[in-house]
Amino acid sequence: MSRTKCLVVGASGYTGAELLRLLLRHPGAELVGVTSRQYAGSPLPEIFPRYRGVGNADALAFIEPDVSAMTGTDAAFAFLALPHGVASEYARPLVEAGVRVIDLSADFRLNSPSVYEEFYGATHPDADLMEEAVYGLPEIYAEEIKSARLVASPGCYPTSILLPLLPLLRAKSIDPGSIHVASMSGVSGAGKKADTKLLFVECNESVRPYSVPKHRHLSEIEQELSIAAGETVAISFTPHLVPVNAGICSTTYAATEKNAAEIGELLESVYAHAPFVRLLGENGCPDTKNVVGTNFIDIGWARDDRTGRAVLMSAEDNLGKGAGSQAIQSFNLMAGLEETKGIL
Amino acid sequence: MSRTKCLVVGASGYTGAELLRLLLRHPGAELVGVTSRQYAGSPLPEIFPRYRGVGNADALAFIEPDVSAMTGTDAAFAFLALPHGVASEYARPLVEAGVRVIDLSADFRLNSPSVYEEFYGATHPDADLMEEAVYGLPEIYAEEIKSARLVASPGCYPTSILLPLLPLLRAKSIDPGSIHVASMSGVSGAGKKADTKLLFVECNESVRPYSVPKHRHLSEIEQELSIAAGETVAISFTPHLVPVNAGICSTTYAATEKNAAEIGELLESVYAHAPFVRLLGENGCPDTKNVVGTNFIDIGWARDDRTGRAVLMSAEDNLGKGAGSQAIQSFNLMAGLEETKGIL
Amino acid sequence: MSRTKCLVVGASGYTGAELLRLLLRHPGAELVGVTSRQYAGSPLPEIFPRYRGVGNADALAFIEPDVSAMTGTDAAFAFLALPHGVASEYARPLVEAGVRVIDLSADFRLNSPSVYEEFYGATHPDADLMEEAVYGLPEIYAEEIKSARLVASPGCYPTSILLPLLPLLRAKSIDPGSIHVASMSGVSGAGKKADTKLLFVECNESVRPYSVPKHRHLSEIEQELSIAAGETVAISFTPHLVPVNAGICSTTYAATEKNAAEIGELLESVYAHAPFVRLLGENGCPDTKNVVGTNFIDIGWARDDRTGRAVLMSAEDNLGKGAGSQAIQSFNLMAGLEETKGIL
Amino acid sequence: MSRTKCLVVGASGYTGAELLRLLLRHPGAELVGVTSRQYAGSPLPEIFPRYRGVGNADALAFIEPDVSAMTGTDAAFAFLALPHGVASEYARPLVEAGVRVIDLSADFRLNSPSVYEEFYGATHPDADLMEEAVYGLPEIYAEEIKSARLVASPGCYPTSILLPLLPLLRAKSIDPGSIHVASMSGVSGAGKKADTKLLFVECNESVRPYSVPKHRHLSEIEQELSIAAGETVAISFTPHLVPVNAGICSTTYAATEKNAAEIGELLESVYAHAPFVRLLGENGCPDTKNVVGTNFIDIGWARDDRTGRAVLMSAEDNLGKGAGSQAIQSFNLMAGLEETKGIL
Repeated sequence: MSRTKCLVVGASGYTGAELLRLLLRHPGAELVGVTSRQYAGSPLPEIFPRYRGVGNADALAFIEPDVSAMTGTDAAFAFLALPHGVASEYARPLVEAGVRVIDLSADFRLNSPSVYEEFYGATHPDADLMEEAVYGLPEIYAEEIKSARLVASPGCYPTSILLPLLPLLRAKSIDPGSIHVASMSGVSGAGKKADTKLLFVECNESVRPYSVPKHRHLSEIEQELSIAAGETVAISFTPHLVPVNAGICSTTYAATEKNAAEIGELLESVYAHAPFVRLLGENGCPDTKNVVGTNFIDIGWARDDRTGRAVLMSAEDNLGKGAGSQAIQSFNLMAGLEETKGIL
Repeated sequence: MSRTKCLVVGASGYTGAELLRLLLRHPGAELVGVTSRQYAGSPLPEIFPRYRGVGNADALAFIEPDVSAMTGTDAAFAFLALPHGVASEYARPLVEAGVRVIDLSADFRLNSPSVYEEFYGATHPDADLMEEAVYGLPEIYAEEIKSARLVASPGCYPTSILLPLLPLLRAKSIDPGSIHVASMSGVSGAGKKADTKLLFVECNESVRPYSVPKHRHLSEIEQELSIAAGETVAISFTPHLVPVNAGICSTTYAATEKNAAEIGELLESVYAHAPFVRLLGENGCPDTKNVVGTNFIDIGWARDDRTGRAVLMSAEDNLGKGAGSQAIQSFNLMAGLEETKGIL
Repeated sequence: MSRTKCLVVGASGYTGAELLRLLLRHPGAELVGVTSRQYAGSPLPEIFPRYRGVGNADALAFIEPDVSAMTGTDAAFAFLALPHGVASEYARPLVEAGVRVIDLSADFRLNSPSVYEEFYGATHPDADLMEEAVYGLPEIYAEEIKSARLVASPGCYPTSILLPLLPLLRAKSIDPGSIHVASMSGVSGAGKKADTKLLFVECNESVRPYSVPKHRHLSEIEQELSIAAGETVAISFTPHLVPVNAGICSTTYAATEKNAAEIGELLESVYAHAPFVRLLGENGCPDTKNVVGTNFIDIGWARDDRTGRAVLMSAEDNLGKGAGSQAIQSFNLMAGLEETKGIL
Repeated sequence: MSRTKCLVVGASGYTGAELLRLLLRHPGAELVGVTSRQYAGSPLPEIFPRYRGVGNADALAFIEPDVSAMTGTDAAFAFLALPHGVASEYARPLVEAGVRVIDLSADFRLNSPSVYEEFYGATHPDADLMEEAVYGLPEIYAEEIKSARLVASPGCYPTSILLPLLPLLRAKSIDPGSIHVASMSGVSGAGKKADTKLLFVECNESVRPYSVPKHRHLSEIEQELSIAAGETVAISFTPHLVPVNAGICSTTYAATEKNAAEIGELLESVYAHAPFVRLLGENGCPDTKNVVGTNFIDIGWARDDRTGRAVLMSAEDNLGKGAGSQAIQSFNLMAGLEETKGIL
């Protein structure tokens, strides 16, 4: 079987590193290039010693993220692991050169340029491409993803919050105005930045909320919730930083008249054949350690009869189902491969 | 100045150890006895090598928790660091022997025997003493604590949730039916039990909700919220275990018509002279690492105009303000010492 | 290609769990049975929720470790992930039933029953099989492993210490009487035991030596060093427990007249074609985070001209190259598969 | 009792923060000033929220480290918590202004300008003051410290290695040419630097040697060992970074003809009255968690008859006995206070 040629653009951070880990071992993909302005010219294993000896890592060196250099790799797919605002510079030239793009930044996740501007503080540079892009949540948009030229892979918090909620909202089983979420994320979610706030001593033995009251991911969460509800949805959402390398745990409350069994049936009906959604049953508590390093999301639920609220609990790897492996799940769909190839 | 003689009953777990750490250095207290059925006869520094050479630790050995042995120490105060259901066996004989008791278990925190039975699954053995006991939250019940024979020191989650909420509820500034809480606790909160779920490898790199949907601490949280609101309050509350030794972070949502400045004024008006409550201001995010090892609780808040909800965020040490040092704060009040003595 | 049928005996601890993780995804192996006295009858994903949905995990349930039940699985290979002293009960009946055995315990690693008795405090029950067993260090004993009926897979500390030292000792390039080692291990190395010493709070924020002065692994380390040196070798070795889940780092000193380049050449000459030994060069410092989850061992070295000593530094995953994946490396050799199959 | 006025120069890193923690609560010291070029003008609690409400913290703001501003605080003592090479700029003007100085940098620890130049790569700017400075190890140099104008407080690794070894070397009980050391340090030892190598994700789940083969602290370790031995001593020393906030564990080997009891007697004879040295006995394994947050150093030992070597094991807090509290121990001696004041 011939392997599909892939390029990773911006491979110096944690998301890029996770993409490399997966692509170097993916039986249907061939990693033909990695770019990094900072590391251009360096052999891949010099920058990522953990990948030395794995797949074709020893044969790769970082290249400049120039369009001609990138298209020169003959890649059919490009994964963009770039900061928001930077990814949009690369998407159009690559797409126009015939390279299908999976963007892991926030640049193409929103449908509305004005919401983008509200949350990201800048005018979106390419509203047309933004409109064309497909939101890369395979459990919801598999068909659109298959034929997309540009997939906007969801953020880590949004994935963990949307997958439990969407089936309930679509079925009108919860009150859209009653949603409250608290999420906890591992430190890799903050990126590989030389920032004293992210030093080991500052994060270890520390638990703290941040980005209060309005985290940027709210924009894409509420967009997708609103689509599912058929009305505008605003939620409460507070992210917390906890001292683990990877993993996100989200706990969501919503008023409902359904009981726990009915909630379970609704989730089952949507996810029965989703290979990466594991339903833990009533009062089943997910644990990030069961999903880290994988593309799974584990979901448990309860109904609190005292308050009339559902409690939805989910766990995923912020670098996995929340970023790298979810992008590869989209890639598998786009490339006509088995959905689980290389990520199970 | 003569020091007040103190006894720690059940000094083998994490709460007991924290009490020892504080009492061995307390300038107004003299530790005259420590009990432990398991360790009776052993010198204190053999069981707690970290306290060797500190205060009078080298002169102390564990004794059996027998009433005559305990009263034989001539202690004026006894701290009970025992499991719930066990503390109540010791409270009456000690109190009747003239020893003032600060109980850190859940046995005397509730006002209602039937609520106790609902949440703890057993008939309360001493309803009279339960009624007499004062809930040991010094910021709220300082006067009652001063003269109490028996103080029921609050649980760790309740302290972190009640202190931000009580002023707002009392002022009728939030909707009592709209409270949603997510809390994250360090692993010491689960106690020093030989349980594989609490092993390092099971907790490290793990984040998980537990005790869903009805944690025992709900009973005392809702009791105190109801008193403050003047009506029955039921809330949503989900605890999470995170890989830190100590620290609790609680994030609470409640519907309010007050803006952030008004919320701040309300909190200021109640806590301006509370030496252990630090108000962080609007959008001020607390961090457990700033309070671990202390008796402080740090409180920040925000108002989300999109949803009409207040966000209250607090951080404390579950073994400190959530247990050991808060008990000593009560002791200071009871013994006529400065409230901050030995814990600032 | 047909897959080789494999059985994991004693799959409830950390080593067993790692074997399951690898075998469930191994393209040349079919996991046909898992045993556990404690969990017999339970579906595999109930005990290990992280493996739900992976390979054929959902089709497996734990069985009793009875010989007839085990041979009834039709397995050609059995991995023993049992405590020492227990594994030897299963090895002979399995071998005699024609099942090739890879034992991950210490039971068959030593050549001398009397050394076994000295270090493990019991008479070895099956000295004949002990003599037949091959020490499963593939970089050294590949040929013997290929045809073995019983392979004794090395301990985690020994692997990390032997691989850097053996080439130098064989070449008579270091003084065998001058070896000093300090090793640091993650907590999974202590096993999944309900022991308060291994609780999160006891291990987190803690670094400590243990098993001083004579850890059991000394016996197999010195056995293999002596074989390589052609004389009896005794070394100094101190293990330390550090708060990571997995990973071993060993730092070894030995007097040598070779310079750093010569040390490098010696190691290169032996390991140039070893797919899992990565040589980091002079002053190259290994890091456990680069090897955790893999079968690699990373080795760096230096020569300190001030003292005339070589410094050898290695890092491996104690559950990987130090246990599970190394056992599969032997399995690959025994089964005629590519050495790296399923573990690269 | 009047308190001695103290100044902390360079209070923005981890050592400075620990000095603040201790001085704000020290019953014999009054913190009258804190300097930081970076934070000048900011209230202390804004930069260190954990100290808000503690002692006189709320009344302090950072000042520029100018000599006139510093002497303007009327401080009798100055603690320098500055990088090496910077501290020496402040020492002379302060000393000449009559302020007694305790320097926590490496600038004045060495006796030899040429050794300084070899290890720190620069000519020492003030050789006279270097010669005058007293090495601030109170267990060894208490008398000299009492009357010193300038104390050079020892490094963290040196303290942990010297205290176990010096009594044995002085008594000629070990072979000075046979010393091998491996040390493990918490990440705070690397300072509060915005360096990606020190990020949480890079240090968590990681164990690694560094500064191979010649760490700078070797210079002061060997200086003091040589003085004790009466001859030039060169040792092997490898530091390792382990994922704890604080704590150093050092394991040292040395050839000896003494048995374990004799080693114990020698250590007892020197440290029987040292309030911060806790001897753990034969085979007693120290644990950093017992000393973190304190000024204690715990020391255990063994003798391995197989190799004829002593094993010395020590644990201390790198920010405590290895830096901040040890500096205050010197301060107590210099100021005529009880040696243990404020640090027990």
